[in-house]
Amino acid sequence: MVSLEKVSSNRVSAGFLTKYKFPSKSLNGLTTSFNVFIPDSAKSNKVPVLFYLAGLTCTEDTAAQKGGLFNEAGKQSIALVFPDTSPRGANVQGEDDDWQLGTGAGFYLTATSEKWKAYNMYDLIVKELPEVLKEANLGLDFSRWSITGHSMGGHGALSIYLKNPGFFKSASAFAPVCNPSRTPWGINAFTNYLNVPAPSSENAQPPKEWLEYDSSYLLKNYSGDVNILIDVGKGDDFYKKGQLEPKAISDQNKKGVEVRLHDDFDHSYYFISTFSPEHVAFHAKHLNA
Amino acid sequence: MVSLEKVSSNRVSAGFLTKYKFPSKSLNGLTTSFNVFIPDSAKSNKVPVLFYLAGLTCTEDTAAQKGGLFNEAGKQSIALVFPDTSPRGANVQGEDDDWQLGTGAGFYLTATSEKWKAYNMYDLIVKELPEVLKEANLGLDFSRWSITGHSMGGHGALSIYLKNPGFFKSASAFAPVCNPSRTPWGINAFTNYLNVPAPSSENAQPPKEWLEYDSSYLLKNYSGDVNILIDVGKGDDFYKKGQLEPKAISDQNKKGVEVRLHDDFDHSYYFISTFSPEHVAFHAKHLNA
Repeated sequence: MVSLEKVSSNRVSAGFLTKYKFPSKSLNGLTTSFNVFIPDSAKSNKVPVLFYLAGLTCTEDTAAQKGGLFNEAGKQSIALVFPDTSPRGANVQGEDDDWQLGTGAGFYLTATSEKWKAYNMYDLIVKELPEVLKEANLGLDFSRWSITGHSMGGHGALSIYLKNPGFFKSASAFAPVCNPSRTPWGINAFTNYLNVPAPSSENAQPPKEWLEYDSSYLLKNYSGDVNILIDVGKGDDFYKKGQLEPKAISDQNKKGVEVRLHDDFDHSYYFISTFSPEHVAFHAKHLNA
Repeated sequence: MVSLEKVSSNRVSAGFLTKYKFPSKSLNGLTTSFNVFIPDSAKSNKVPVLFYLAGLTCTEDTAAQKGGLFNEAGKQSIALVFPDTSPRGANVQGEDDDWQLGTGAGFYLTATSEKWKAYNMYDLIVKELPEVLKEANLGLDFSRWSITGHSMGGHGALSIYLKNPGFFKSASAFAPVCNPSRTPWGINAFTNYLNVPAPSSENAQPPKEWLEYDSSYLLKNYSGDVNILIDVGKGDDFYKKGQLEPKAISDQNKKGVEVRLHDDFDHSYYFISTFSPEHVAFHAKHLNA
């Protein structure tokens, strides 16, 4: 049994937000922190769980402080889990030099490069953290589990959802990286963490190791029903620069997938906090169905 | 006419949050920044205005990022104005050494000490900023104006409201400093900014210059009707340490004053963001009456 150390606790909405840390097996023994919001109602009946995966440069605190998720989560009796975005202190050469790779930029995958061997946020989120939370007996019901995220974390939420049929009731994302095997942040992450080089031509099919983490590819090959909500701001510079490519998902016209483009909104938490209550309500509908 | 320089603009809720800066006469010519949220509806009809005064160490960005005010303000068609908490760069000796005095700690008064002569946040907020905003023709209706704030900013909101009968429709505060002439932050601020020494005995009547900024004293001597809402968390360390003293207000049992104490909540923005939609709705009721 993992020793979960309480770092802090704050009353918020109709529950408590508590920060814990623990040494993570997935991250080669490095200590990782996460925040969990547990509504009071969990004391009498287990509550469903929504994971929030944050974007580049963020931590487990960013969306807790700026995301505006708690009042709706409290009202809907849903627990929220905010993991960190990467290992911390892995001592990989250069890991703190570039905000797009290394610390704060784990990309929610399982690294296969020897150099980045601690970078296994996928394993942490899909396997270890749910186990740790179940063992801690906090009143969370992982048979009702959904996932959301922003930007890199939107990629994380969608790809983790699509790679694990039956695990989650629903997925949503704010300004997600939808087609990482063909866009710069993804190519950079896959080239390094997976140690699989880019194809010689831009038009060539990306390597299969990359496609395993590409939500638009995963969706294309997904056979079951899906419940996906995606919001993107048209004023988002990363959208304009082709980092997000929601068309790669919306053009598939899949049943159960809603992609909404919003005039003027940018990539910031002002965008997220505008729509986050709707996302919590979207998940509540599926978690409580 | 003041030259208002746009620093940034973000779409949020049903409007835009814009940061401006300008050289402030009140602050001896120092440049000050503020954020203003203007709902889209201001384009067709002028909208009422709610000022938010932040607490010690904060800036014009803190509540904009963490306060959770925008969705309700957008829904209610209310503009929000977030001033800074002190002058910046006044070059007073020691102003950056103590988070409780100087930079980030302007205490919303008009300094009468020669040393702190730029520290005139009261004048900025009550007189200059409304004038600057009116001149800029942004669609704000200052005949419908209310004020709120947190901690030091809660003191600011309540004292400014009570010192200016007829200016504001309503005031509210999160964990405000209610009796600053008898509690440490206030005594420290008044002693320094007003250059009026503390009385020789703790039980003596505080100096009249101090009482002019003491909300509990101002309320006692207020003759008109008031609309005041105050929320305080019982888990707030500053409440427990006697910095806030809401009893000095609630014990007066004044009509139109509601003081609510909440189990477990602390001094953080988790507390504020839980109740901020209710505060916006409280002000909306009075602004749109």
